[in-house]
Amino acid sequence: VGKGELTRNAVLDQAARTASEIGLRGVTIGSLADLTHMSKSGLFAHFGSKQSLQLATLRHARDRFVEVVVRPALSTPRGEPRVRALFERWLEWDTSELPGGCLFIAAATEFDDEPGPVRDELVRNQRDLAETIARVFRTGIDEGHFRADADPEQFAFDVKGIWLAFHHFGRLLSDPLAAERAQNAFDVLLDTVRP
Amino acid sequence: VGKGELTRNAVLDQAARTASEIGLRGVTIGSLADLTHMSKSGLFAHFGSKQSLQLATLRHARDRFVEVVVRPALSTPRGEPRVRALFERWLEWDTSELPGGCLFIAAATEFDDEPGPVRDELVRNQRDLAETIARVFRTGIDEGHFRADADPEQFAFDVKGIWLAFHHFGRLLSDPLAAERAQNAFDVLLDTVRP
Repeated sequence: VGKGELTRNAVLDQAARTASEIGLRGVTIGSLADLTHMSKSGLFAHFGSKQSLQLATLRHARDRFVEVVVRPALSTPRGEPRVRALFERWLEWDTSELPGGCLFIAAATEFDDEPGPVRDELVRNQRDLAETIARVFRTGIDEGHFRADADPEQFAFDVKGIWLAFHHFGRLLSDPLAAERAQNAFDVLLDTVRP
Repeated sequence: VGKGELTRNAVLDQAARTASEIGLRGVTIGSLADLTHMSKSGLFAHFGSKQSLQLATLRHARDRFVEVVVRPALSTPRGEPRVRALFERWLEWDTSELPGGCLFIAAATEFDDEPGPVRDELVRNQRDLAETIARVFRTGIDEGHFRADADPEQFAFDVKGIWLAFHHFGRLLSDPLAAERAQNAFDVLLDTVRP
């Protein structure tokens, strides 16, 4: 890893923190120049435009998400343990990884009505996540932990709902019971899909 | 209703549409002047500041939410029918009321890390909504439709999760099955709280 890549990673780490706290629209060449004490022209040379910077921020955060949530979950035993690991690692991601929680949640509501490359990247990213949940759930059907007629796509919808509610109750409403409620909801959901 | 109030309502209707599509941060004296063809000085005289305008937008949308979601639901029979009415009217609100769906969802992720009057208003508003869900659920316990030991606050968390997932899958992912998945999730949730 050369110096250029270290700098790029440091800038994108800051961009991810900014996107998490004030939203992806707050990630601009100007705001990042202020926050990283780099020159605008230097950042422009690295990233080219606000939109390229926002896309690079999403891809950078996605790599990190795969590293701290998806990959460790996929290394746990197939079936319910893997489903639980994925669920719990996401809660940890939303709680501890970034100062304002999961940046994809904020970006999703910012860009859902704005066609373009940023929205396209978010859609790909969040469809992949839903498919990952469904795929992990299927390992639980194969292992006999879940009913053969349970619907993996419905399960992905349900899990995302719990995550979104956790973010909403924890971040906006400062509900000290948010994590407990998310865990309860997940346990009840698993009960509904057991054989 | 005088002319001033009609004008004010028309401006706030537009502000709610803008907040729904591009977020509450996009609601400014300048953007509303452009969209409503009113003078900035006229809007400034009405609303005083961007923040006052944003607060007025949230209160205006809240009044409308009470009118089209909460009040009709509260006029249905107590218990499960009322819980279902509240659930379904919210889906309709997110689908049809505004061009970008529920503006509170977008505003919540925009302002959850920004202390101040706008965040305070959102917190009050969303806590009231969670309490309304819990209160309506309690009528179902009283009527014997739901288990006496079911937790109304947990139910409110779960219902909000389904709504947030509906918004996410419908708005961002353009999933044609979003409404069906939300209804399935709600039916399964009701099954878990029956006596």
